Amino acid sequence: NAEFGNGASVLVGDFLYSRAFQMMVGVGSMDVMRVLAEATNIISEGEVLQLMNIGDADIDEENYLRVVRYKTAKLFEAAARVGALVGDAKATQIDQYGMHLGTAFQLIDDVLDYSGQADEIGKNLGDDLAEGKPTLPLIYALRTGNIAQQKIIRNAIEGVGDPSVEVDIANVVATLVATGALDYTTACARREAETARDAVANLPKSSYRDALMQLAAFSVDRR
Amino acid sequence: NAEFGNGASVLVGDFLYSRAFQMMVGVGSMDVMRVLAEATNIISEGEVLQLMNIGDADIDEENYLRVVRYKTAKLFEAAARVGALVGDAKATQIDQYGMHLGTAFQLIDDVLDYSGQADEIGKNLGDDLAEGKPTLPLIYALRTGNIAQQKIIRNAIEGVGDPSVEVDIANVVATLVATGALDYTTACARREAETARDAVANLPKSSYRDALMQLAAFSVDRR
Repeated sequence: NAEFGNGASVLVGDFLYSRAFQMMVGVGSMDVMRVLAEATNIISEGEVLQLMNIGDADIDEENYLRVVRYKTAKLFEAAARVGALVGDAKATQIDQYGMHLGTAFQLIDDVLDYSGQADEIGKNLGDDLAEGKPTLPLIYALRTGNIAQQKIIRNAIEGVGDPSVEVDIANVVATLVATGALDYTTACARREAETARDAVANLPKSSYRDALMQLAAFSVDRR
Repeated sequence: NAEFGNGASVLVGDFLYSRAFQMMVGVGSMDVMRVLAEATNIISEGEVLQLMNIGDADIDEENYLRVVRYKTAKLFEAAARVGALVGDAKATQIDQYGMHLGTAFQLIDDVLDYSGQADEIGKNLGDDLAEGKPTLPLIYALRTGNIAQQKIIRNAIEGVGDPSVEVDIANVVATLVATGALDYTTACARREAETARDAVANLPKSSYRDALMQLAAFSVDRR
């Protein structure tokens, strides 16, 4: 987008999307098509929901987790289910696995946005904040912080796009650390990953089951 | 887009696109999925091709017609073929019908951009030019006009996005009329519509065949 502008980026995005659908058709399974068409639809609903929440400091945890289920977890759920469909397995527990894995992944992503190293995670400190996204660390700090801490966070979320508001990202990170918001979010992610692991733990022992369980653990330990 | 900005427009576009795919899955035909996935892919290629041609006064007629086949005619072709698939008909001649109908439709669209009434066609005089699109009327005028006429057209196409270039749309329209570019493009469209009509003329007589033939005629006579 920075190199070629909005027009080219959007059109090439359409091309990739339609090429992906072509490849799905190549699999020749109507069930696979149904799962992925439904998932794509819900993911785009999630992106619209997220857009509606931009700059809104009054989003609560439940509302935020709904966005995560839609925009991220649905993709993991669909990916997991398609694997089960193609392999003729029962899909119920793998849906749960994918959904909780996706939620864990997104919550860690939210934490990394305030604690990661740019060269390791591929994005800069505070990118979410710069886009006005009220993610779980911010929501928790707003809910549990003292008046001064709340003011720092609210100001940062609501100031998006307002050139008169200066946001000190170091100050925001310090507030998230002081309120325990990053620890809280990491703990939530860990719980989601454990739920994911539990969903497949009673499958017959195999290297595939172990890989799924290791992936769940990796999703919260990645840097 | 004017009301809500790029972000919301692109995301809602994604939503509509994915919802359309959901509805296609609802038909339950893998052949329909294949035709529409392939068409969507080619249409987005066509849009990228068109974007690459923006502001380029050296596009020739063959190159332009390829863009039309991709970005517009493919959609008509796919629509026609899906009707045939769902109705268990042979699809060969209906493909030809759709392709030529779509080409006729696009060429008339190009003419209307320089001759239509805004309240009738839903877009303003010279919208294509304002976006730097070198459509067939411009290409023909550049190929057949005298030096002064060529200069007017070239200046108009290449000046897109350059605030120092002032384009007099009335002057461009007068040049298109004087060179016979609008008549030429309309004649091309009429030939495409006739080819479309011929493709279905030898089908057994029925009200459906007649409707297809009337649609071909309408595509060039619409205002």
